[in-house]
Amino acid sequence: MSPRGRRPGGEDTRGAIVEAARAEFSRGGYDATSLRAVARRAGVDPALVHHYFAGKPALFAEVVGAPADPSALLGAILEGPREELGRSLARAFLQLWDSPEGRTRFEMVFRSTASHEESASLLREFLAKEVFGRIVAAVGDPSAPQERQRLRAGLAASQMVGLAVMRFILRLSWVAEASVDDIVDEVGPVLQGYLVR
Amino acid sequence: MSPRGRRPGGEDTRGAIVEAARAEFSRGGYDATSLRAVARRAGVDPALVHHYFAGKPALFAEVVGAPADPSALLGAILEGPREELGRSLARAFLQLWDSPEGRTRFEMVFRSTASHEESASLLREFLAKEVFGRIVAAVGDPSAPQERQRLRAGLAASQMVGLAVMRFILRLSWVAEASVDDIVDEVGPVLQGYLVR
Repeated sequence: MSPRGRRPGGEDTRGAIVEAARAEFSRGGYDATSLRAVARRAGVDPALVHHYFAGKPALFAEVVGAPADPSALLGAILEGPREELGRSLARAFLQLWDSPEGRTRFEMVFRSTASHEESASLLREFLAKEVFGRIVAAVGDPSAPQERQRLRAGLAASQMVGLAVMRFILRLSWVAEASVDDIVDEVGPVLQGYLVR
Repeated sequence: MSPRGRRPGGEDTRGAIVEAARAEFSRGGYDATSLRAVARRAGVDPALVHHYFAGKPALFAEVVGAPADPSALLGAILEGPREELGRSLARAFLQLWDSPEGRTRFEMVFRSTASHEESASLLREFLAKEVFGRIVAAVGDPSAPQERQRLRAGLAASQMVGLAVMRFILRLSWVAEASVDDIVDEVGPVLQGYLVR
């Protein structure tokens, strides 16, 4: 089989798609990368990319090593009760990373972001478009200027990122040893205040 | 002059003290390191350590590359009006890091924390003892269990750390390009809510 030919299905194909996606994201950034270009680089039919991955956010989550696609979790949360948004976000965020494997993955994403501007840039594009942009569009306070709504969404993001840094990287015992329920009780209202007014 | 002899004053002495402190902190952690042991390792009189540094927190700030000693800034904030605590903390934290030099230093501290467990451990000890422990002691809600007060202080810390990660490392434009005043307006009440009830 020529390396330029189309590959058959299987784990090898899935891995080839992930590697091709890593290269395309790295070359062009998140927004500019198309699943078609990923398929072309992997030498597979575009239908196979869709077979393995629900969409670009899911493929990106796989490339950065997230335990799940955050934008898919977000969809469910945004469809839930508005008054529970802050608590649901806090709980989903903790549950995403709060297992031994999740912690290890958070450390990997974090170290890569800390040491490679390119990783930071990719993650920034993804978060703005697939996570916080969607929250602002769904729940933003229409009486506030868009700039202020975006700042609040970014601060909600910063609360979650900082929580994970304290719990998984710095491991300050006050935060690292607290129960998920206690953290949700405290962080939920803060996220709610930033995002829903 | 013998390398084991006492050194005279000057930049060389100051640098020797900082290097000795780095080694002592690294060997024994923050709490267990004494200024006397630092002086002994640097081969200088303990009075010289006190001549160059206001105390252990100031020496630690120098070793990790912070632009100033956060615990000294904190002293002034804790003496100010209680109802302004959240806003004052948010403003002082941003002003500490929010210059081109401060950003570079934050990146350095951050990368080192991300990649060396020892750096994370030192920073954790310092923050718990000299920063958040003092806030809890000064303003904690006496009706809440100590564990809950500490969780809230840790979450206030996590909001500030996450803010700096978003602004200086991920550089999400919504947060990176906002004015200090706008950020203080949003983050101040959140810190106030965590710390003062």
